Amino acid sequence: MSYKRLLFENKDQIVTLKLNRADKLNAFDLLMFEDISKAIDSISRDRSIRAVVVGAEGSDFSTGLDIKSVMVNKQAGFKLLWKWWPTQSNLAQKMSVGWRRLSVPVIMAIHGRCWGAGMQTALGGDFRFASPDASLAIMESRWGLIPDMGGSLALREITAMDRALDWTMTSREIPAMEALEQGLISKIEPDPMAAAQAYAQTLAERSPDALAGIKKLYQYSWHHNDGRLLAKEWLLQWKMFLGKNRGIAVQKAQGKSDRQFVPRAL
Amino acid sequence: MSYKRLLFENKDQIVTLKLNRADKLNAFDLLMFEDISKAIDSISRDRSIRAVVVGAEGSDFSTGLDIKSVMVNKQAGFKLLWKWWPTQSNLAQKMSVGWRRLSVPVIMAIHGRCWGAGMQTALGGDFRFASPDASLAIMESRWGLIPDMGGSLALREITAMDRALDWTMTSREIPAMEALEQGLISKIEPDPMAAAQAYAQTLAERSPDALAGIKKLYQYSWHHNDGRLLAKEWLLQWKMFLGKNRGIAVQKAQGKSDRQFVPRAL
Amino acid sequence: MSYKRLLFENKDQIVTLKLNRADKLNAFDLLMFEDISKAIDSISRDRSIRAVVVGAEGSDFSTGLDIKSVMVNKQAGFKLLWKWWPTQSNLAQKMSVGWRRLSVPVIMAIHGRCWGAGMQTALGGDFRFASPDASLAIMESRWGLIPDMGGSLALREITAMDRALDWTMTSREIPAMEALEQGLISKIEPDPMAAAQAYAQTLAERSPDALAGIKKLYQYSWHHNDGRLLAKEWLLQWKMFLGKNRGIAVQKAQGKSDRQFVPRAL
Repeated sequence: MSYKRLLFENKDQIVTLKLNRADKLNAFDLLMFEDISKAIDSISRDRSIRAVVVGAEGSDFSTGLDIKSVMVNKQAGFKLLWKWWPTQSNLAQKMSVGWRRLSVPVIMAIHGRCWGAGMQTALGGDFRFASPDASLAIMESRWGLIPDMGGSLALREITAMDRALDWTMTSREIPAMEALEQGLISKIEPDPMAAAQAYAQTLAERSPDALAGIKKLYQYSWHHNDGRLLAKEWLLQWKMFLGKNRGIAVQKAQGKSDRQFVPRAL
Repeated sequence: MSYKRLLFENKDQIVTLKLNRADKLNAFDLLMFEDISKAIDSISRDRSIRAVVVGAEGSDFSTGLDIKSVMVNKQAGFKLLWKWWPTQSNLAQKMSVGWRRLSVPVIMAIHGRCWGAGMQTALGGDFRFASPDASLAIMESRWGLIPDMGGSLALREITAMDRALDWTMTSREIPAMEALEQGLISKIEPDPMAAAQAYAQTLAERSPDALAGIKKLYQYSWHHNDGRLLAKEWLLQWKMFLGKNRGIAVQKAQGKSDRQFVPRAL
Repeated sequence: MSYKRLLFENKDQIVTLKLNRADKLNAFDLLMFEDISKAIDSISRDRSIRAVVVGAEGSDFSTGLDIKSVMVNKQAGFKLLWKWWPTQSNLAQKMSVGWRRLSVPVIMAIHGRCWGAGMQTALGGDFRFASPDASLAIMESRWGLIPDMGGSLALREITAMDRALDWTMTSREIPAMEALEQGLISKIEPDPMAAAQAYAQTLAERSPDALAGIKKLYQYSWHHNDGRLLAKEWLLQWKMFLGKNRGIAVQKAQGKSDRQFVPRAL
């Protein structure tokens, strides 16, 4: 797989992905959208991958949509917004939703500006580590738009309604400290990329089936009623019992073996 | 429109509404309920209005239901609780739900006591600014009742279950600082009315269609599953594309024009 | 009712329950599961009970599942996981869900370690009071499993998704202060058992019908759409109006009478 807008590295089953258009502050043109989509698909197919870290080259995570580039390319708008069916995600929404749907944990390593399309992408991660000087913004209302890249799926899970409305209606810059206090990011780290990679390695000590099961369980539980959640939890646990990785995890926990986990079963 | 229990002012498309029964600490009698209902309907019909600020005359926002007055008037209880259909809001619930359903942002400016019916009304706002000495209370359990004015629709969006249970089961007074830390209010401001009006003006710099779309999107997203949210977001964005205000917003953002927005399309 | 793994005391209609297997750090064997299930059923049947406090004998709340004991007893796994229907709770899930379904407030008094099955049980309470030195952990991923005892029903109501994922994926120990800041516990108290009992008495000053109604209303409201919540709130309030305890509450509030509440109606 070759990428024009991304650096893709798979080291010890941990993927590090970097937005790679530093001369344009990693603004999203159609190539960026398409490369991220391809990367998500490629990670999804490889069951040996244990975790994903997403960061960026240059001074900023991303300043958002490259409007000129998308306007010049007449097909771009169509490609970004087209859906076969309303409830599926289009290419724009996949920037955020795609990470959620992966069975592995995804950690966003944010520095500098993280605005608009960059912010929506960051909201797709399971965790957001940001540098102390990071500046976040939900920028769409500045252009008379609503955020339409799926980031709202995450907002309701991490912050309060009035905070989300304030950020989105004003489109103001949110300093890292406020973002942390109000749940928009998970952690402030001097070197978010290094911290995210270290955290990915910590997570990789656990069974890949368990991590996948936990991610699926919680995404489900946040938005379904009690009965359906009790069923989901029970069915997912049976998958754990029937998989090979549970036994390996038990042996690890008891210090009896240091065998590697087998590729994830879900 | 004339009001007996409200002051209604529309200045530069920003409505300031004040509960106006200061001699009774703005306790809710039937006239207060009916006036607020009328005001909500009137705001709803006027598509040029950009934002609403709700405050109160006198020493307190409101000390809650005027029980004596409601008991004396035999029809009052009936008028407050009557519904044609269980899922619609009755007059009591409209005090909170009515503000949510408006397409414009609603900011509550709270000072002094904000109890019972006053608290439920305040919960209907998108934002709550309170003075440092404000005292909030979900008072209904003191009278052997549950809160039944629709404020629960907001609680789940802004705070944690155990906090909400504590406040509602004990009906204790909640100081402004605790309310802020636990999400019950958005901000503490020395002069909440002035701060709310300034914030309303900041919001009015954005497209009215975008503000309406964001409010609808987030209220929907907090309580629907991923697929339906992806559809909603996409459909709302098409309304933005098709409206006139998006173009005006872009020109404003680029400093090319200072044209006024046209009345909101949704 | 006699218990082998619990101390059960009913004093002035407030039940204090203590896990009573201190020599095994209150690890959950099949008897513990069965005793807790019996206790929940017994509390559920007694409409005079006003509140429940759950604590533990010895140095720790509970260090989790007694794996050896459950493995030796071949029927234990079957008994814990069996369901007649996917959406109902099995014996394992009842440890958490059972407390939620009670119509009375349940306060967990946590000291020492509260891990695995202990943590899931604690998540079933409406409130969690913990000692400053308490250590909490969602331990299942250490054994290659997902948490499957129903605690996820509470997590989504009290904390943010990324916190929940972090705790559950890493299975790390969570100090009391972090647990408080992130919503996992309600309060830090030097003597959580004494504080929980005092709080139970405060709650018992309110009408038992109102407390039951509030608990049902909020559990419902967190996971249903606006229309259904408006109906639920209205129907529950009619139960308050029709019950005897509302009148008693009003007389108490007005200082006119100190009559005891009658047993709860819902």
